[in-house]
Amino acid sequence: MLTAGGLVLIADTRTNAGIDNISVYKKLHTLAESEDRLIMLASAGSLSVTQSLLSLLDEGLPAEGHDDLPRTMANVPTMFRAAQLVGEALGEAHASIAHVLNGSGIDSSVSLLLGGRIGDGPLQLYLMYNEGNFIECEPDSPFLQIGELKYGKPMLDRTLQWNTTLDEVVKVGLISFDSTMRSNLSVGRPLDLIVVPSDRKKQIVKTRIEPEDAYFDLLSDEWGRRLHEARSAIPDPPFLPEFQHP
Amino acid sequence: MLTAGGLVLIADTRTNAGIDNISVYKKLHTLAESEDRLIMLASAGSLSVTQSLLSLLDEGLPAEGHDDLPRTMANVPTMFRAAQLVGEALGEAHASIAHVLNGSGIDSSVSLLLGGRIGDGPLQLYLMYNEGNFIECEPDSPFLQIGELKYGKPMLDRTLQWNTTLDEVVKVGLISFDSTMRSNLSVGRPLDLIVVPSDRKKQIVKTRIEPEDAYFDLLSDEWGRRLHEARSAIPDPPFLPEFQHP
Repeated sequence: MLTAGGLVLIADTRTNAGIDNISVYKKLHTLAESEDRLIMLASAGSLSVTQSLLSLLDEGLPAEGHDDLPRTMANVPTMFRAAQLVGEALGEAHASIAHVLNGSGIDSSVSLLLGGRIGDGPLQLYLMYNEGNFIECEPDSPFLQIGELKYGKPMLDRTLQWNTTLDEVVKVGLISFDSTMRSNLSVGRPLDLIVVPSDRKKQIVKTRIEPEDAYFDLLSDEWGRRLHEARSAIPDPPFLPEFQHP
Repeated sequence: MLTAGGLVLIADTRTNAGIDNISVYKKLHTLAESEDRLIMLASAGSLSVTQSLLSLLDEGLPAEGHDDLPRTMANVPTMFRAAQLVGEALGEAHASIAHVLNGSGIDSSVSLLLGGRIGDGPLQLYLMYNEGNFIECEPDSPFLQIGELKYGKPMLDRTLQWNTTLDEVVKVGLISFDSTMRSNLSVGRPLDLIVVPSDRKKQIVKTRIEPEDAYFDLLSDEWGRRLHEARSAIPDPPFLPEFQHP
């Protein structure tokens, strides 16, 4: 989620190879963090391709000039160039396993969220498709999703705006994840969360919400209770005869 | 939705063959209605297969004995037998176009909801898969969905229970559809709605919610406003530093 107040990235940590083979893997990675930049990547889809991609980005891609350094997240000049480099690395990761998977029917597709800022640039957020092409998040739709996205999207569509304050953005994101986790067992806590305020004087927050997180449990319970209240408060359908009412 | 209070069926009416070819077609059909029975069918998926299925059910399937009448919704003895007959007719409908579609790559799959009651039997609701097999709705999960189901499912998961009153069931269903219609353009008003109270002395309601329905607009606006309020009322995340707050 990218709003006026800042960038909020949330990812779950559940990976599965079938319903009977579930593990915890980090899906929200910090690719570069220094005085002049912060670049983060969230992934959905094939774990093996994602790990290859991360290793390739860590090593760096071949330099363009003879005497240049390998191209890495530590030296790309802009977030747009960072997205291009990730796209290139994703192509490499796919190519390196193509001959192994060829005809196997195994789905090796991956989608990514790339967010952060470089130098004096603004916070930016990109969604990268499996082929390495990408779109950028814009204020009219201030969020992008990957993976199991439908269950949690109505909440984001309905209540997230460019001027939503950063606390509220975090709450919306957690409520969206709560909806998804209730409907799909393959999404689960712990959740990783990074909050990067637009204001550089404000503190960056990185936290993990564990399976027994008191705040998340409160949020989930309160939200359920308030949904019930909200529904009850809406007038009854006029097309139902009076005697339907309790 | 099948609760203690009764059966509520809701279907949209939007059919599309691509984003540039959208029509209004009824998807909620009354198959039989008489003193002793009420049987309804909602459909999702291929329109041509659905129409063939309806025609086959109308004509009736071949009689089992020599002197028997064709088997129709008007003479099946139970809802279970009705579901079996619909499954059989669906197989026929698929078989009759199989040679046309063979190898064309056109998706002719269909899913169905069959609901109603026969004689002194209880209200029952079945979900039928494309192959003609089916499951029955039970009190632990008092709803079944077909078609574009994910956007609207969290609302149902969260607030629908076996003892939810019939007015509230209708509201939950409409809110669920509202979420879906906001996220997917291929779902749209008019909505068809049938409410069958368990109590046979109560009136059955059949209505269509048009694109400019004042109650639905009110429900949608109120729901949006109350979601905002609900979110604001939840305590702020404790892991955000104080100065994030506005």
